[in-house]
Amino acid sequence: MDIDKVLDELRRGRMDARTARTLLSLDAIESVGGFAKVDVARRRRTGTPEVILAETKTLAETKAIAKKMLEKSGVAIVSRLGVRDRAKLAAFLRKQGATVSTARRTTTVLARSRRRGRIAGRVGIMAAGTSDIGIAEEARLMCESMDCECATAYDVGVAGLARVFPALEAMAKFGADALVVVAGMEGALPTVVASLTDVPVVGVPTSVGYGYARRGLAALASMLQSCAPGLVVVNIDNGIGGGAAAARIARRAR
Amino acid sequence: MDIDKVLDELRRGRMDARTARTLLSLDAIESVGGFAKVDVARRRRTGTPEVILAETKTLAETKAIAKKMLEKSGVAIVSRLGVRDRAKLAAFLRKQGATVSTARRTTTVLARSRRRGRIAGRVGIMAAGTSDIGIAEEARLMCESMDCECATAYDVGVAGLARVFPALEAMAKFGADALVVVAGMEGALPTVVASLTDVPVVGVPTSVGYGYARRGLAALASMLQSCAPGLVVVNIDNGIGGGAAAARIARRAR
Amino acid sequence: MDIDKVLDELRRGRMDARTARTLLSLDAIESVGGFAKVDVARRRRTGTPEVILAETKTLAETKAIAKKMLEKSGVAIVSRLGVRDRAKLAAFLRKQGATVSTARRTTTVLARSRRRGRIAGRVGIMAAGTSDIGIAEEARLMCESMDCECATAYDVGVAGLARVFPALEAMAKFGADALVVVAGMEGALPTVVASLTDVPVVGVPTSVGYGYARRGLAALASMLQSCAPGLVVVNIDNGIGGGAAAARIARRAR
Amino acid sequence: MDIDKVLDELRRGRMDARTARTLLSLDAIESVGGFAKVDVARRRRTGTPEVILAETKTLAETKAIAKKMLEKSGVAIVSRLGVRDRAKLAAFLRKQGATVSTARRTTTVLARSRRRGRIAGRVGIMAAGTSDIGIAEEARLMCESMDCECATAYDVGVAGLARVFPALEAMAKFGADALVVVAGMEGALPTVVASLTDVPVVGVPTSVGYGYARRGLAALASMLQSCAPGLVVVNIDNGIGGGAAAARIARRAR
Amino acid sequence: MDIDKVLDELRRGRMDARTARTLLSLDAIESVGGFAKVDVARRRRTGTPEVILAETKTLAETKAIAKKMLEKSGVAIVSRLGVRDRAKLAAFLRKQGATVSTARRTTTVLARSRRRGRIAGRVGIMAAGTSDIGIAEEARLMCESMDCECATAYDVGVAGLARVFPALEAMAKFGADALVVVAGMEGALPTVVASLTDVPVVGVPTSVGYGYARRGLAALASMLQSCAPGLVVVNIDNGIGGGAAAARIARRAR
Amino acid sequence: MDIDKVLDELRRGRMDARTARTLLSLDAIESVGGFAKVDVARRRRTGTPEVILAETKTLAETKAIAKKMLEKSGVAIVSRLGVRDRAKLAAFLRKQGATVSTARRTTTVLARSRRRGRIAGRVGIMAAGTSDIGIAEEARLMCESMDCECATAYDVGVAGLARVFPALEAMAKFGADALVVVAGMEGALPTVVASLTDVPVVGVPTSVGYGYARRGLAALASMLQSCAPGLVVVNIDNGIGGGAAAARIARRAR
Amino acid sequence: MDIDKVLDELRRGRMDARTARTLLSLDAIESVGGFAKVDVARRRRTGTPEVILAETKTLAETKAIAKKMLEKSGVAIVSRLGVRDRAKLAAFLRKQGATVSTARRTTTVLARSRRRGRIAGRVGIMAAGTSDIGIAEEARLMCESMDCECATAYDVGVAGLARVFPALEAMAKFGADALVVVAGMEGALPTVVASLTDVPVVGVPTSVGYGYARRGLAALASMLQSCAPGLVVVNIDNGIGGGAAAARIARRAR
Amino acid sequence: MDIDKVLDELRRGRMDARTARTLLSLDAIESVGGFAKVDVARRRRTGTPEVILAETKTLAETKAIAKKMLEKSGVAIVSRLGVRDRAKLAAFLRKQGATVSTARRTTTVLARSRRRGRIAGRVGIMAAGTSDIGIAEEARLMCESMDCECATAYDVGVAGLARVFPALEAMAKFGADALVVVAGMEGALPTVVASLTDVPVVGVPTSVGYGYARRGLAALASMLQSCAPGLVVVNIDNGIGGGAAAARIARRAR
Repeated sequence: MDIDKVLDELRRGRMDARTARTLLSLDAIESVGGFAKVDVARRRRTGTPEVILAETKTLAETKAIAKKMLEKSGVAIVSRLGVRDRAKLAAFLRKQGATVSTARRTTTVLARSRRRGRIAGRVGIMAAGTSDIGIAEEARLMCESMDCECATAYDVGVAGLARVFPALEAMAKFGADALVVVAGMEGALPTVVASLTDVPVVGVPTSVGYGYARRGLAALASMLQSCAPGLVVVNIDNGIGGGAAAARIARRAR
Repeated sequence: MDIDKVLDELRRGRMDARTARTLLSLDAIESVGGFAKVDVARRRRTGTPEVILAETKTLAETKAIAKKMLEKSGVAIVSRLGVRDRAKLAAFLRKQGATVSTARRTTTVLARSRRRGRIAGRVGIMAAGTSDIGIAEEARLMCESMDCECATAYDVGVAGLARVFPALEAMAKFGADALVVVAGMEGALPTVVASLTDVPVVGVPTSVGYGYARRGLAALASMLQSCAPGLVVVNIDNGIGGGAAAARIARRAR
Repeated sequence: MDIDKVLDELRRGRMDARTARTLLSLDAIESVGGFAKVDVARRRRTGTPEVILAETKTLAETKAIAKKMLEKSGVAIVSRLGVRDRAKLAAFLRKQGATVSTARRTTTVLARSRRRGRIAGRVGIMAAGTSDIGIAEEARLMCESMDCECATAYDVGVAGLARVFPALEAMAKFGADALVVVAGMEGALPTVVASLTDVPVVGVPTSVGYGYARRGLAALASMLQSCAPGLVVVNIDNGIGGGAAAARIARRAR
Repeated sequence: MDIDKVLDELRRGRMDARTARTLLSLDAIESVGGFAKVDVARRRRTGTPEVILAETKTLAETKAIAKKMLEKSGVAIVSRLGVRDRAKLAAFLRKQGATVSTARRTTTVLARSRRRGRIAGRVGIMAAGTSDIGIAEEARLMCESMDCECATAYDVGVAGLARVFPALEAMAKFGADALVVVAGMEGALPTVVASLTDVPVVGVPTSVGYGYARRGLAALASMLQSCAPGLVVVNIDNGIGGGAAAARIARRAR
Repeated sequence: MDIDKVLDELRRGRMDARTARTLLSLDAIESVGGFAKVDVARRRRTGTPEVILAETKTLAETKAIAKKMLEKSGVAIVSRLGVRDRAKLAAFLRKQGATVSTARRTTTVLARSRRRGRIAGRVGIMAAGTSDIGIAEEARLMCESMDCECATAYDVGVAGLARVFPALEAMAKFGADALVVVAGMEGALPTVVASLTDVPVVGVPTSVGYGYARRGLAALASMLQSCAPGLVVVNIDNGIGGGAAAARIARRAR
Repeated sequence: MDIDKVLDELRRGRMDARTARTLLSLDAIESVGGFAKVDVARRRRTGTPEVILAETKTLAETKAIAKKMLEKSGVAIVSRLGVRDRAKLAAFLRKQGATVSTARRTTTVLARSRRRGRIAGRVGIMAAGTSDIGIAEEARLMCESMDCECATAYDVGVAGLARVFPALEAMAKFGADALVVVAGMEGALPTVVASLTDVPVVGVPTSVGYGYARRGLAALASMLQSCAPGLVVVNIDNGIGGGAAAARIARRAR
Repeated sequence: MDIDKVLDELRRGRMDARTARTLLSLDAIESVGGFAKVDVARRRRTGTPEVILAETKTLAETKAIAKKMLEKSGVAIVSRLGVRDRAKLAAFLRKQGATVSTARRTTTVLARSRRRGRIAGRVGIMAAGTSDIGIAEEARLMCESMDCECATAYDVGVAGLARVFPALEAMAKFGADALVVVAGMEGALPTVVASLTDVPVVGVPTSVGYGYARRGLAALASMLQSCAPGLVVVNIDNGIGGGAAAARIARRAR
Repeated sequence: MDIDKVLDELRRGRMDARTARTLLSLDAIESVGGFAKVDVARRRRTGTPEVILAETKTLAETKAIAKKMLEKSGVAIVSRLGVRDRAKLAAFLRKQGATVSTARRTTTVLARSRRRGRIAGRVGIMAAGTSDIGIAEEARLMCESMDCECATAYDVGVAGLARVFPALEAMAKFGADALVVVAGMEGALPTVVASLTDVPVVGVPTSVGYGYARRGLAALASMLQSCAPGLVVVNIDNGIGGGAAAARIARRAR
């Protein structure tokens, strides 16, 4: 990223144009099947692999892109798969030699070309209701794609405050460097958690709820207006983003 | 309200049309100065006096209506007064022989033609932040206009959970028949309170906060989506309505 | 809830840590099947049982949680069941020895381990249109889960004002301690009712209607902006919450 | 408006291009001071004079346009004047020989070059609260600019239903061909009125109210979702439009 | 509706309580099957029959209510039927001896116990696009239920202004006393029409369109903000309401 | 469009009424099957053919209108077809002798009665993600219906900035007179593009994304608030409109 | 922008790093007073000068930045100045030797270091109401900053359609390469204009209007949902952006 | 936080009730002047001091609370002060012996009872426009209150992409553990930054901008919908929260 240095080397003839392009990141993009341009260098550059959003792609397209990602970066993570395609994609990726992880209540699939080595960080993941578990698991898979270890505590909403304290204790024992706290409805759990700990907390609002400010808007509003400073937020149902953020933080902490 | 009986009495000649009109509540309305028709029977009918919204009236109009209310129903409560008019109105109402109550951070004024007799009920009033006190005090004055006694606990928001428990204990000792819980920002306090007690809880969102879902929409959403069933809500900044509702409940409980 | 006392007893050795945990409500939570943590003490603490939201659970999960609730608290109430699962769940719960109640136009199911004893309060339930009956019945079942007796008056909207007055008379004769008034579209019925009675009124907006402010937003807005002070509101289509609130009030009144 | 006929006459030489332009309404526009093009033929074409929106004009500009309107169409109606400019404009228009009408709580000014002759229709105007009177008066002035006679009934909101019935009786006696019903907050009055009469009803929501759906959105929603079919609506605070619509209806009825 | 007179007659023994109840409209309600209270007097009272919203009813319920309406008021109009139920309901109503009308692109069904006699008024109905025809036909059926005659002009949107002028001429020749103008997308047609005629215009926004302010919000906004004063509006897709309003106006004009 | 001249010619007898009507565009409309009035002159008048929105039409109706458009203007473009109808319509139009174009991920169909002659302009089309390709292709077909040549660059979103620069270079080499830039989610690509080029840029937000400001509202907001002046926008998912606008600009540039 | 060529030249020693940085636009930024980094190359790169938004700056800061812009790019355009600062800034810029342009009803100021030479394009600017003139003039000044010539037609809204046709004729005679059409309230004018011409049309919604969808949202919605394809839009009140877009188009057309 | 241990110690008589309360955080609250309950332990518990929101307090109240905070926790940070009160408060706090920091364009004041010792972490702060500097400085002061060192880069928005790269290089050299990226309008900068680095990025949308999605909603939407996973967000204009979050992260990283 030291532009002057690259340009200078180039000018002095110590470097050819191809190398300069690479160093300036101009060759990070791989074309797949004529319809996609995959940013295979993203994981190296930002720590986060490019997530393949399967929702608007055919299974064939998803397979092709996932295969390319796996080859080039060692990790492929696919979200918003059709329910029926999950097993098919997992089988396909296993055939490529990858270790594949899936989870209950979510259609996200994680494939790694080899088991991870050292743990890059520790992330704790909490969910307020049983309905929020799918999004929480999405976060967990994302963290694992970034080589972090995870501990989870689910169904610990504030309507039964007594459930929250033991969960927080467990997270402290685990040594979490970052917490992902997933909640729908009134979304109060991240506020309560962030006011009881000094670990960075990423709130993930979910679309659980109905009526006024439904589809997660109440939970989002509640987290953004939180009286607990230091709480940060990602988009509604964005378990992927919440996991990615927590993993970035945890990696930084190691 | 027994229409048949009224109509029957009337038909039998045991009652004149004037009395029937009255019993059918047709004469409950008093005209003031040609521009207002005051519902002086409302307090008798619903327990709640008609509140005089001063915001869009001149001080002279407000005085005339308040005077009429005081004469006809023994109570006048005026909200959303201009800051400068509060002292003037209070003085005017004292001259009418009324006992006048005001409170910090709110421009609501309560006048009663005589001190209250027996206590009609007990209401506890909690506020999450110091910025919410004005609305809480508005609720208190409304409860007092309906002959309820009040206990208050202010600045007990969830960012410092340790503040909440002693406040709840105090409310239990006071014997509150209903709780008014006032909160702005993420509005989590009423959810936490309603999940720890079996007393009816009226949430009052306030417009404290800024940014997304500002002007109280976050707090309102949070209370409507609350995972604590049994929590009810009134409009944003509607301390008057929250107080009226709690007093109705408390009066019923006695 | 008297923390000092608990701590003091504990210190003096008159109480063991287990008892203190219980008194401080730290043992109120039961784990179910590894995925849910059920707050079985909620009914004792708040008068309201934890409602099992079936929408995002499998039937097997719902059964497991309902069974646990029934065992531990004597009541299980399940809302937002799939239409096809209603009969299955009811049969399952009857097999557990419970008395099971269901109602037309709603998929809420109430099971009680024994018939209720004394009536804890009386709640009147009104619905503006025939389309609002499902939500009203949800409220009725919730009230019954809290041992209240209910009277109902349906299809009494303000477009035919003459329907409202006899319904109000009937509620007065029944001796309702609280009214639940359910309305969609313009949501004017709770305002009209609250201005004609001194009983506490809980408005429940429904998502009946279409076009501008559809999905119940018009009815919600109308109830929050009501010119009848003392009207309180729960979320759109939240018959459960409306019933729980009214039952809390009615229980307090006895 | 019979285009073929105009074109045919023109072709036969029985009409010159100037006349054709006029008949095709091409000369209806008068330029004022280089910055405005006034549609002086609008009153003849649609029954409704062009309303001069003073809000974004200097007083000098408003005067110039009003003078032109008065000369060309016999009527000038100016709305949203600055408070201080009302008396100045009225004096200026009186100097032009016009009869000028103003009203309490509104800054709309109506000037007519001579007193009206025959009554073109009868319009009844109702307002729910004292805060709604300004908008109601705006409607009244608009109706008068279209030669309709008006009867008014103010402060007759549904929180005191007993006020509504006598007002409806008075409107029936007056023989109103159309009703303008002005209401803020929950906006229930037009629904109640439209369900009790067969006269066309124009609802005018006002921005009175606060909190959720404030600025008149609750009242607008309530009127659009009304269960009383036949109720029509204009924009929030649009007394001018409500009056114009009612006057159109009333003129048609004569 | 002359309450004093009714009460006076009753008092003098010239009228029994039953008659007074009727005159005060207290007996206008017919119960159907224990679940509905039908306002059979509405057509007499307001000119508009109660519309049966089929959307949330079973076919059997709809039939029962429609039959009762037909018997008591001579007209039954049913909207928002399931597509498959239209033919079934029509056949059922024909068996009751009614004349039944339906229309393309709408599921509204109109049944009359006999063919209408004299024409109560004339209504012109315009639609901007072919997608708006269903709502326009709903308006036509409603007008016919109120004994008005209709003329229609469809697919005359402003993107081809040349289509508008001949349609307006045709409406003038027909002698329309009121115009219903139906438009989706940007909703400009009612503004253009209302600025070219002095006939009352009822705008009906439709949910045709997509993207920003979709579901008819753009069309509604456009009609409410219209620079053509005198334009009134009903809710999005509310052809029933638009027709009812226009028929009220047209009936008044005769 | 020189009205005076037309009228003058007509008056002098040098032109008949029929010709005048045509010149005044009064005969541009063709009726199809009694339900549609097709603006066949639109392409001549505005450069843009009337687009046939198939969404709310039967296939038979769509065919009839497309056939008429093809005959009268040489081009028929049909959007929002049902997926199953695309092949059927294409076959039908080919039978009419037309050249038919379709594209991946979009259901828009373009038919031309003969292959285009000279190129009327050049348009570059960029899409941020693979999910945006369908809308981009819709834009391409629209441009081609207006005789413009297109170059495309897809999957070049800002999360991999290195993809953007080569795409811009390619567009410059192609000689694009206008750029259509399609993006969903946060919609940043048009801002980045517009700040790096002096070619007119039309942003097309798409409904790709979820959570807060989903359905394209985030992308729309981002493009309207863009800090790159000169960026213009069309509605969400409106590839047709974006293509039409760019083609208008490109045609003007030639 | 030909990166390879720059890198190649550099590598061959024919170019120094400084030149490469410049060609790669790395030196386009000038620092002003430690708090601003001005993009002085923007006008060269995109045709559009960087606009100085004065709203949140002190007059001293604005002066410093404007002076720098004038020196480096020959043009300074400042928008959203405080009313009182307009004359002061104009005087200051004249002292710098610039030719300064201002306009009625807008606080935008344009300064050029010398009078423009050749005309780069022609832009027509239309405004619907007199209240929209300020935004239209803002667009005009922006076009002039980009060396375009402008013709204007103001107060030509659709409520008086007869005003629109002559304005369109005038624009055709002027030879406009692009039209900016400014409208508030229902925003119908751009739709009508775009359906009558083949010149590219940029719609600018203004915040004129009140009530529902006020602050320009109705006008924006109307333009985005327009049935006239080819209409493009910029943000509400963004005369600057509308002018910049039109000037880009017009420059391309030359 | 090890509840069992505390309870056990207490039971064994090794600890008195007072100590247990403290360990259970029950004594963390200090009462100020009867109106506020200050959470003086928050900084110890969460790393973040309680921020004093001055907006709704009198200067006297603010002083009293700030003084208490300073005494009890060594830091007082006050935001949303009135402009005139800033100097007064700073002087008052200096008199208490504190070191006071303020910044341009923001009214936040930071006071520390002694200069900080070791640096707890490094935070980089970037702002897109000069209008965003106030919020960025608020973040800086917050970070400093948590003993972090900050580097800043302001006015580096994406409309001049060339400004972004050197700023990123500077941040990398500084060794930032977290980045706060502040942006209004379309809010694209955090997306661009997060896609070019692996440091955790906290986006802070500001209310700079106007028109559609004004008051920061566009920027917020853009950041929540960002295609750059790992970007987290706080509320609009919440520089305090953004700074607190970044400082938590940076402290964790050390």
